[in-house]
Amino acid sequence: MLKPKTISGFYENLPENQLIENKFKDIIKLNYNLAWFTSLETSSIERIETLTSKWWDDNEIYAITRLKWEWEKPHLGLRFDLTVPLARYISQNEWKLTFPFKRQQIQKSWRWERPQKWRFREFYQADIDIISNTKLPILADIEIIYTIYKTLKSLDFWKFIININNKKLLVWFLDFIWVKKTIETITLIDKKDKIKDLEPLFLDLWLEKNQINKIFELIDISNKWDYDSIINYFSGIKNTLLINWLSELKEVYLTLLNLGIKEDYIKINPSISRGLNYYTWTVFETFIFWAEKYWSISSWWRYDNLTSNFSKNNFPWVWWSIWLTRLLSVLRELNKIKDNSKKTITDVLILNLWKDYLKETLILLKKFRENGINTEIFLNMEVKMWKQIKYADNKKIPYVVIFWEQEQKNNEIQFKILETWEQKTILISELNKLFKDLKNEK
Amino acid sequence: MLKPKTISGFYENLPENQLIENKFKDIIKLNYNLAWFTSLETSSIERIETLTSKWWDDNEIYAITRLKWEWEKPHLGLRFDLTVPLARYISQNEWKLTFPFKRQQIQKSWRWERPQKWRFREFYQADIDIISNTKLPILADIEIIYTIYKTLKSLDFWKFIININNKKLLVWFLDFIWVKKTIETITLIDKKDKIKDLEPLFLDLWLEKNQINKIFELIDISNKWDYDSIINYFSGIKNTLLINWLSELKEVYLTLLNLGIKEDYIKINPSISRGLNYYTWTVFETFIFWAEKYWSISSWWRYDNLTSNFSKNNFPWVWWSIWLTRLLSVLRELNKIKDNSKKTITDVLILNLWKDYLKETLILLKKFRENGINTEIFLNMEVKMWKQIKYADNKKIPYVVIFWEQEQKNNEIQFKILETWEQKTILISELNKLFKDLKNEK
Repeated sequence: MLKPKTISGFYENLPENQLIENKFKDIIKLNYNLAWFTSLETSSIERIETLTSKWWDDNEIYAITRLKWEWEKPHLGLRFDLTVPLARYISQNEWKLTFPFKRQQIQKSWRWERPQKWRFREFYQADIDIISNTKLPILADIEIIYTIYKTLKSLDFWKFIININNKKLLVWFLDFIWVKKTIETITLIDKKDKIKDLEPLFLDLWLEKNQINKIFELIDISNKWDYDSIINYFSGIKNTLLINWLSELKEVYLTLLNLGIKEDYIKINPSISRGLNYYTWTVFETFIFWAEKYWSISSWWRYDNLTSNFSKNNFPWVWWSIWLTRLLSVLRELNKIKDNSKKTITDVLILNLWKDYLKETLILLKKFRENGINTEIFLNMEVKMWKQIKYADNKKIPYVVIFWEQEQKNNEIQFKILETWEQKTILISELNKLFKDLKNEK
Repeated sequence: MLKPKTISGFYENLPENQLIENKFKDIIKLNYNLAWFTSLETSSIERIETLTSKWWDDNEIYAITRLKWEWEKPHLGLRFDLTVPLARYISQNEWKLTFPFKRQQIQKSWRWERPQKWRFREFYQADIDIISNTKLPILADIEIIYTIYKTLKSLDFWKFIININNKKLLVWFLDFIWVKKTIETITLIDKKDKIKDLEPLFLDLWLEKNQINKIFELIDISNKWDYDSIINYFSGIKNTLLINWLSELKEVYLTLLNLGIKEDYIKINPSISRGLNYYTWTVFETFIFWAEKYWSISSWWRYDNLTSNFSKNNFPWVWWSIWLTRLLSVLRELNKIKDNSKKTITDVLILNLWKDYLKETLILLKKFRENGINTEIFLNMEVKMWKQIKYADNKKIPYVVIFWEQEQKNNEIQFKILETWEQKTILISELNKLFKDLKNEK
């Protein structure tokens, strides 16, 4: 006999948590729909050459082969995100799609990683992307940020902060203070929340004391998240490029405020970079810190050449992803998900105790369902009544219906509210009112 | 440069087909909810030992390993259906679940197969299961058939026929006419629609002429799908077991008619078996023939010992699956899906032509979305007006909104209906009426 267990790093829900995950997915989908992102799904499996083409760490890829051929070199693998497959899809279907193409995709990806808290080998991402075949104006960035803001607001879990930056700003700044090892320095700046004392590491990169001080100044001003201070900090410098970038940043920020985003939720943070090698660094970058400890549960980039491996055409691209599996597991850990007391999607349980009543009871069941009420009938009529009610109670089914000899004769039902134990008689002819009430409750 | 292409056997949708697939999924989900099947998802990956434990053809399994470890013997694989993982899940969580446990699962599975028409290596199934930890009365079978009937009716694609049988009947019948090689004979009977001349194959099994004639008689009576003829055919035989099984079959059939299923949609077919080795053969078996050519797009079984590899406890189990990917591809092939003329989920496109109007236009966009209207703004204001309208037309967006200087001054919008090219002026103060009308259209 095999011991049944899930595999380390692969998360599975109990039914009550699945309901919460579904609710999150539905809310996300609704918001993505409102903002006209069309739904898309890509295949879970890609060619290894597609997966490894230029931008990822091979170590994390799961390869796939027919079990029978297990010793052959695999040429297929599971996708590790939803972006590389989309780049392949866009290039493949570029003549069939209308651009700018906007898609939403809520699907799983897989990565080999050492299992650790909030890091899973199989996980949901909820992505939106805007891809153009010509120019992609800054309004696309605004649209994406606004959609994510509305989505996270609707999820109503706690507090989140969206950080925006123009990565060119950071690169320009390092150039301005004569830093040569740009990539290594940015990688270090990116770790500022994880590493306590960055100074010796900067010194290892041969940065001078006054350069390091300037970088700390930037980090400092970034941590303030104060729009005016940041603009002021740079405003002394007369440089056309810098002025353009700052005004772009300003436009995004002010447009979002104009759309009603509160200042608490959106901050300009010039020190954010999130790596350089995987993502091309063009306009903005955003991710979300959340709760007091700033867990990243979502991030966003703009690329210019994501499809360059597949197509001669250029597709500027803005992308945002909510790390759904991670978000849910963080929220669970922090007890920020209200316990969904209803363990099922069932509203009503109809008791089933005697063969002679079954025929009419089934007709009643049909009536409930056809009026949009999720209704269950207890399957085993040999189970005692109190046990059937206990079953409803275990599953947190709020209502129980009794429809036996007496009721069938009188054309009525007994309707029991389990929470209060109250029981009322309702005429069959007045069921429509009950259905309406039950639907309003949802 | 890589040639971007999907892998043979892996189907991907264009956006317009994805919308249809989503619609199908939503309708299925709605019907499964009404009948109180709680939603569940299991991990895509299982241990190979779980996948191969007793009931499947290893040849079809995809093995998984870390790409880096490609030469090591894999111990994980992709699930090939939703049933084996559920057996593992049930055994693993048996103390946390309330039984009878009813779940729905609409997820993908993967099988290595020679790619052929309507057979995919990655495919959606939409399963419902009822699993008990004690007895599972015949009402469970009725519930499952009724739910699938309602679901397929709601999908409203064409015509389908649900065939039900009690597999014990067939086995008993073969025993009754002294056939020894039961499994081989059943396998042949199962192929009756694919093989033209079964007789020589029966002779190869050393069946005698009169046995073969009896089998053809049964197939004949089965093809008539006539309840009375079938009952009559067996009624001459006095055997207690046979009488019990027939009366069970009769109960299911009559109860379903009582629930309003038309006789055209449900048939008793004693010659259906669908293989013996993988599924245990207890009570009923059903699948759906469809259109004139009887494609199977769904099937159903009852098992007794599915969890026997994982648990000492016994879980009687009824299962039904709609082969969603297959159903959609058959319907597409037969042109039975009405073309979804709307290529996006968008209802309204707001034009965007001049920077000065953008601020107020975005506020308007916000208003549309907050009232539940899927609304898009054209991103690139440098694109000419007629091209923006052409974009709406390409995407089959039905309505276009203009909100520029004149309109902003007059507190009104221009609302253009692309189908008729009609354009009307609507006051901002009267937008609520428009929102209501648009929502009623859906």
